[in-house]
Amino acid sequence: MTVKKTVPYKTYLTEEEMPKSWYNLRADMKEQHAPFLNPGTLEPIQAADLYPVFAEKLADIEMDETTPYIAIPEDVQNFYKMFRPSPLVRAYELEKLLETPAKIYYKFEGNNTSGSHKLNAAAAMAYYAKEQGLSALTTETGAGQWGTALAVSCAHYKLDLTVFMVKVSFNQKPFRKAVMETYGASIIPSPSTTTAVGRAILEKNPETGGSLGCAISEAIEQSMQDDQCRYALGSVLNQVLVFQSVIGLETKIAMDKLGEYPDVIVGCAGGGSNIGGLMAPYMQDKLTGKGNPRIVAVEPASCPSLTRGKYAYDFCDTGRITPLAKMYTLGSDFMPAPNHAGGLRYHGMSPILSKLYHDGYMEAVSVAQSEVFEAAVAFAKCEQILPAPESAHAIYGAVQEALKCKETGEEKTILFGLTGTGYFDLQAYANFNAGNMSDYIPTDEDLKQGFDGLPNVG
Amino acid sequence: MTVKKTVPYKTYLTEEEMPKSWYNLRADMKEQHAPFLNPGTLEPIQAADLYPVFAEKLADIEMDETTPYIAIPEDVQNFYKMFRPSPLVRAYELEKLLETPAKIYYKFEGNNTSGSHKLNAAAAMAYYAKEQGLSALTTETGAGQWGTALAVSCAHYKLDLTVFMVKVSFNQKPFRKAVMETYGASIIPSPSTTTAVGRAILEKNPETGGSLGCAISEAIEQSMQDDQCRYALGSVLNQVLVFQSVIGLETKIAMDKLGEYPDVIVGCAGGGSNIGGLMAPYMQDKLTGKGNPRIVAVEPASCPSLTRGKYAYDFCDTGRITPLAKMYTLGSDFMPAPNHAGGLRYHGMSPILSKLYHDGYMEAVSVAQSEVFEAAVAFAKCEQILPAPESAHAIYGAVQEALKCKETGEEKTILFGLTGTGYFDLQAYANFNAGNMSDYIPTDEDLKQGFDGLPNVG
Repeated sequence: MTVKKTVPYKTYLTEEEMPKSWYNLRADMKEQHAPFLNPGTLEPIQAADLYPVFAEKLADIEMDETTPYIAIPEDVQNFYKMFRPSPLVRAYELEKLLETPAKIYYKFEGNNTSGSHKLNAAAAMAYYAKEQGLSALTTETGAGQWGTALAVSCAHYKLDLTVFMVKVSFNQKPFRKAVMETYGASIIPSPSTTTAVGRAILEKNPETGGSLGCAISEAIEQSMQDDQCRYALGSVLNQVLVFQSVIGLETKIAMDKLGEYPDVIVGCAGGGSNIGGLMAPYMQDKLTGKGNPRIVAVEPASCPSLTRGKYAYDFCDTGRITPLAKMYTLGSDFMPAPNHAGGLRYHGMSPILSKLYHDGYMEAVSVAQSEVFEAAVAFAKCEQILPAPESAHAIYGAVQEALKCKETGEEKTILFGLTGTGYFDLQAYANFNAGNMSDYIPTDEDLKQGFDGLPNVG
Repeated sequence: MTVKKTVPYKTYLTEEEMPKSWYNLRADMKEQHAPFLNPGTLEPIQAADLYPVFAEKLADIEMDETTPYIAIPEDVQNFYKMFRPSPLVRAYELEKLLETPAKIYYKFEGNNTSGSHKLNAAAAMAYYAKEQGLSALTTETGAGQWGTALAVSCAHYKLDLTVFMVKVSFNQKPFRKAVMETYGASIIPSPSTTTAVGRAILEKNPETGGSLGCAISEAIEQSMQDDQCRYALGSVLNQVLVFQSVIGLETKIAMDKLGEYPDVIVGCAGGGSNIGGLMAPYMQDKLTGKGNPRIVAVEPASCPSLTRGKYAYDFCDTGRITPLAKMYTLGSDFMPAPNHAGGLRYHGMSPILSKLYHDGYMEAVSVAQSEVFEAAVAFAKCEQILPAPESAHAIYGAVQEALKCKETGEEKTILFGLTGTGYFDLQAYANFNAGNMSDYIPTDEDLKQGFDGLPNVG
């Protein structure tokens, strides 16, 4: 009870306390993930091979296995100060609701116009593109958080931006288009007829709602048409985990100040950008023997790459124009059902997270959509914040851990990542409120199609 | 330039530094506003006369002219800690854009699910209703921030809530309904057929988009049907200014820490809830001779109660069932054009603010909608936050002040209230982006209709 009185509801770092460097988990990994391969030659690719696709500094960070700390440029530190630090919140009301002896903390990343943690990586990517003298970026977006984050960042750094938005999300969320356009971005629903790969996908499947995999192909293709333009990706990549480490680094500084250390860390997992960032310094502890928290990824049952995918080389996109990455994947042909957590509808998982999961450093669970929304609404009513459907996967996972503590009487410390807000997901909430929420879970037969399309590599 | 380095982008108070009392401006006013009158007898009303409408403690605060500081109940302090303190932001990027020597600060109240400052008053009203043992509240909402705020508060205090939502906003913002329903509220577009007053208004004007004045009448009528139910109002009232003083009190503590004192304070003004709260401790300085900042209210040209209204006794609602209040008003029959700042579409102004304005303690300006959105988009692109259309009125006003400083070279300190976010106003932004924004300004003839309907009192 002493702790209850001394721990504030929200802990903010001062601007001086904010991290000055990102942390690159790979520098502490005992084994690296298998190399990215050129899909033509099957040879490992080098950073320079990525220069036509990514800004050079980003390609360098992508391939960096050895530098543990990468200085955050002062300009990006200042950009961060406009929406960070994010609060570390003690979930007193949720604890009360669950009648759990556990202490629940969450790092809330939703207090910015992207509504999510995505702005952490977008700021860095726009900065490095500008630093290189480029004039434009292309990207894809699912739920719209990433596209909005990059639009906000490109407005700041005065870069043109074209966003290929997964068609099903584009239709579900008309206002996401308006917000990205307000920041000056051009939005194209994907698959589109503006790219060769989009036209091919549409010819094969004219009624498709699209996927992140399709939109990535289109965004890359379009970026290749212009020497002053590069592509940016909001998840999966190693560079994204580096930039998102700011979440975990801030969290650890705040938890240390409170004298707390998590027994279990829970994050939602689509491509891995959030949980990868949140757990980074704690995974460092695991890798270096300084701590051993459990780390639990929660993914949608409709798109279960970690829990039901294969650990294999695969393309990162549907159009098969990216390098091959070894990762947990459902196959780049897999078309996830149109559920409401658009940010988690991706066939693959970060190669770093995939490797760590494969080597036993992490756990994963999957959950059906309606259970996620039950957790979301209960959370909203007691903690005030309306969570994004993606974030609600982590809430669900944290609630399960807290209920286990209730059974055993253990006073564990649970930390989860609340990645963002659900202000653009109200159609989903309206469906849930009206009892119209589907819980599609792919059968083994459904998954077979994606697996059959996996490239026959190593 | 030294200041630039030492003032952080954002200043948060610690939870210990947060105000423990609200400030009641009336205790320091040299003259009180004219008394509220019973519309039947034209006699001044007493607190007890309001007990059938408001929770008793709220009625008492409404009538309190003498108590300067009212303790914030511990439970409400804890509720506040879930979404407060709000940051005081130094607008470095906006200053750079405007090339102004002025220092611009804004108090940002949008980081909560209501998307605005409205939660400050909603929390208090729900708390006092619960404390009295009531089971339900009714209210009206325009843009939806207030309805959402009260829905979040009623979810916390386990009160039933019915929200009458101005029909034009209800149609413009379908997702506001979903968010309020997620928190358990029932939403009725107003005017509706569920109340006598709604039916009368619809009979007179079947095509009306409604107004806050109509919705207030309906909410009061419905609350009177149930002994366990009371009505709650999000602006205009004295009690609202008391609760919203937390904005200004936090701001002043933070400014004092930074060694700053505003030369001018700018706020948007509909019913007065935000600017009344923001300026409260600075108005205290003016009233007690300790300081003399200019205080500027910015209102929409389409609903210009301060700049073009009459200072007269009027009803607070269209159905003419409330007490009479002496205030700047366009007449309770005035039907404002359906502009996008739904929170500012109210015919009257807080009696306290009206009195202070009348006595020369405040200034007021009005601005057309498209100029407001120009300021909003420029602000969004440099300061990252997508502002609510209401809040953008204050941005516009602050920008004008900063540009004056650019002309004169004065290094003034400008403080404005950024009341909330525009995440539910994307249709408005889409219209603006597409060049489809109307700038309706009522003619003198348009205003005459409202003035003609003013009751012939005092």
